[in-house]
Amino acid sequence: MKTTNYTIVLIGAGNVATQLGLALKKAGLNIIQVYSKHRSSSQKLAKLLKCEHTNSSEKINKTADIYIVAVNDDVIAEVAKQIYLSNKIVVHTSGSEEMNVLKPASNNIGVFYPLQTFSKTKNINFENIPICLEANNTKTYKTLELLAKLISNNVKKINSEQRINIHIAAVFACNFTNHFYSIADDILKSNKLSLDIIKPLIAETAEKIKINHPSKMQTGPAIRGDKKTMDKHLKMLANKDHKKLYQLISKSIIGKFQQKQD
Amino acid sequence: MKTTNYTIVLIGAGNVATQLGLALKKAGLNIIQVYSKHRSSSQKLAKLLKCEHTNSSEKINKTADIYIVAVNDDVIAEVAKQIYLSNKIVVHTSGSEEMNVLKPASNNIGVFYPLQTFSKTKNINFENIPICLEANNTKTYKTLELLAKLISNNVKKINSEQRINIHIAAVFACNFTNHFYSIADDILKSNKLSLDIIKPLIAETAEKIKINHPSKMQTGPAIRGDKKTMDKHLKMLANKDHKKLYQLISKSIIGKFQQKQD
Repeated sequence: MKTTNYTIVLIGAGNVATQLGLALKKAGLNIIQVYSKHRSSSQKLAKLLKCEHTNSSEKINKTADIYIVAVNDDVIAEVAKQIYLSNKIVVHTSGSEEMNVLKPASNNIGVFYPLQTFSKTKNINFENIPICLEANNTKTYKTLELLAKLISNNVKKINSEQRINIHIAAVFACNFTNHFYSIADDILKSNKLSLDIIKPLIAETAEKIKINHPSKMQTGPAIRGDKKTMDKHLKMLANKDHKKLYQLISKSIIGKFQQKQD
Repeated sequence: MKTTNYTIVLIGAGNVATQLGLALKKAGLNIIQVYSKHRSSSQKLAKLLKCEHTNSSEKINKTADIYIVAVNDDVIAEVAKQIYLSNKIVVHTSGSEEMNVLKPASNNIGVFYPLQTFSKTKNINFENIPICLEANNTKTYKTLELLAKLISNNVKKINSEQRINIHIAAVFACNFTNHFYSIADDILKSNKLSLDIIKPLIAETAEKIKINHPSKMQTGPAIRGDKKTMDKHLKMLANKDHKKLYQLISKSIIGKFQQKQD
């Protein structure tokens, strides 16, 4: 069968389902149905993908080749118990869930984890996004690999333990980082300044690790051991939560630097 | 006098002095001397800028128009006491030091703070970098503004209190963020993976705040309230320091989200 003839059912209609659905459709794949418990979400995504939708798990179309479960991590196991698709390929898209939680759903299971941060409102070009694949047998893996290569040039075989560690690294490098952009914005706002003023700085910080290792690019008062500036900053920080974060992370930077010196 | 005829002495030969010196030279300014306590540093930078250098504060050339003190925050005050330049313009480049620490050095003082992260090894295009200016009189301010506009399209008048808050915001959005890239790298390395796999994610995280507010773009287990995944991550994190950071920042993300809901 030609790869682009695969038929796909999307289970879930959140950020990942939306962006992945759009990318697969653009690559010529045939998405035949969207299932979500929430009618308005499945309806909305089905409209984007020009396919059917349902909010009843019993009405999930059983004729597709591949079922992509893109729901919150904590409900993947539950969903897998609700659907039984014997030999169809069933994958989830999670960074942290074991592949085996899908066992109740099929004999051919896998993971299709696109390593990126997704929002419904910002469309993503998948070309360079790493797709981390895992499967419980070679035939399933080969099919997933063909599928992944239709949307990305960066397809990788990653086992469950590696995947969870990638996810943890991503939490630090992406989720926590975004939270800090948000804290920076709060600090600026309370001084009648806009985040715009540090946007070039944010861009350069992300940019410069392309050419050098982040541990070699560390700057700021903590790595300089500039206690006077750190004390001044702590004194200025009105928000207790920000103060605590500032202290702990500065300590962590200093600790890491000292380790390197030893 | 034509702006580009200003003569400049650089006091300091670190990352900021190097990058700023290169940018000013490129804009046609006449840098006549580099002073640094450390002979090898001043020599190296002077060679780049094709100018004189000294490592004796008594030999600082007294004929320049503008003296740029680009040294570590905690020695600016000390340097200001060592040099006396009566009516010459003396500025520092620090985010956190008061302008007034320069008072012993001259009657015409100011701050010339380029809001960017600097490394000696990566040259910086100053064009879009905000230059935050402050001066103790209008004439000095006007001169600094002319100078700044030669290298940047983003020149801003910022008082000392605003500047220190910008610096704190920058510590969160840049220094802390870079430390987290570094932690991510450690986690990946101990699982025989390279930081390369999350580089597209890092780029997208920085990119997406250009189009939407970071607090609206928060993703990850904490904002989803996905306790199961967070517990799994904490269990996997072998490094105590990383574990503590994970807990505190996740709590901070949840706290901020709950505040928004109230």
